[in-house]
Amino acid sequence: MSLIVPPDHPRYYSLLYRERIVEKAKEGVVVLQGLIAHGRGEAFDYMMGERTTPAALKAEKAAVALLKLAKHPVISVNGNLAALVPREIVMLSKALNAPLEVNLFYRSEERAKRIADLLKAHGAEEVLWKPDAEIEGLSSERRKVTRRGIASADVVLVALEDGDRTEALKRVGKKVIAIDLNPFSRTARMADITIVDNVIRAIPNMIKFAEEMSEEECKRTLEDFDNSLNLRESAKYLKEWVQRMIEEL
Amino acid sequence: MSLIVPPDHPRYYSLLYRERIVEKAKEGVVVLQGLIAHGRGEAFDYMMGERTTPAALKAEKAAVALLKLAKHPVISVNGNLAALVPREIVMLSKALNAPLEVNLFYRSEERAKRIADLLKAHGAEEVLWKPDAEIEGLSSERRKVTRRGIASADVVLVALEDGDRTEALKRVGKKVIAIDLNPFSRTARMADITIVDNVIRAIPNMIKFAEEMSEEECKRTLEDFDNSLNLRESAKYLKEWVQRMIEEL
Repeated sequence: MSLIVPPDHPRYYSLLYRERIVEKAKEGVVVLQGLIAHGRGEAFDYMMGERTTPAALKAEKAAVALLKLAKHPVISVNGNLAALVPREIVMLSKALNAPLEVNLFYRSEERAKRIADLLKAHGAEEVLWKPDAEIEGLSSERRKVTRRGIASADVVLVALEDGDRTEALKRVGKKVIAIDLNPFSRTARMADITIVDNVIRAIPNMIKFAEEMSEEECKRTLEDFDNSLNLRESAKYLKEWVQRMIEEL
Repeated sequence: MSLIVPPDHPRYYSLLYRERIVEKAKEGVVVLQGLIAHGRGEAFDYMMGERTTPAALKAEKAAVALLKLAKHPVISVNGNLAALVPREIVMLSKALNAPLEVNLFYRSEERAKRIADLLKAHGAEEVLWKPDAEIEGLSSERRKVTRRGIASADVVLVALEDGDRTEALKRVGKKVIAIDLNPFSRTARMADITIVDNVIRAIPNMIKFAEEMSEEECKRTLEDFDNSLNLRESAKYLKEWVQRMIEEL
């Protein structure tokens, strides 16, 4: 089914990416539950005005600072992330010198490989997708990680995540950066840095920061960043949106 | 993939219906875009506390009153509604003496028939699904209706709807009752009566009202109902939820 949406339509990008993720579900990159999760994200994105808020931009900068100062940063990739921004996560991986690791809740060998192949088709030289280690205290398929990747990482970037895994990663001593449009989710509250933004905007912003920021600037940025304060700032945009919408009723 | 969720899990029903709609997507009743729409609904339901608010209950009662007093009420059914509450919409149809008509945005003959068959398997004696008329001023597949059903209806119940159709139905003089978890959607704002609730709770509540309410009570209920006021009341629950969540951050 093709979609004809003029680029000046106020919700152009939302509709475009909706079609993209549906295509990727047909190709077996995204599971059907992933489409439902995408819809939840759409709802929060719509309430945030489908834009990067000033708070989100600050969190994106702090996230890049933490990743750049890390000894062994890793970018965890699931089906939705790979479907939405395959080229961009490969670029971010290169800019940060951080490997990409496929990590799935609804894991199958076939799907993990398909996602790795998709990333390679978008320029990734290597993608970690064959687990040889486990994260303690996590029973889902998400426990399966690689020794060279998440198992030995000090900082992990996760997007479109479940709360259980963020909690487990924290418990084994990792710093977690989460991209989550719901500022109240367990993931958002447990992460060290939470980016309340759509990955379609967050990842490009992060690539830019990764290319620009010096070590000095990274250190200063992290000193000035307070995640709990930043989360509350993000949530205020949501509250203001609801307030404005009520006034229009 | 089977799901084992204990019934005392706080989000039991949400997770159960998530699996149900995924199953129905595999069977071709629900389209992939319908799964994304379900996710958007989940997000709003979560913000409303996954319960029928007092405002929603009032709207459900008023909706039944309007349907009972109608000359020719019709229940419009799409893939998601049929997937989530097939038995319940058949029961509501019988309790209201209102025919069921399949109306789809992503329409194919095959899917329309499959939905009709699903409803028949749940006890429907007749399901209107072969269009022989059109709603003016609507270009999507949703324009296709039946003469015996929506075309001649004075009141139409729509659930999980797009704004364009609600607008078109209003323009040709129908009264529209919408079930929509987003109190700010165009559908919610255009409908004569808007039920801001999950169909899994709204339809059972409506069956009960349909069985209980006398004509007298229907008239009184409608006299006392103000949709715009009711919508604002629903939206306030959302606002209060956001406020509470911010305080917990």
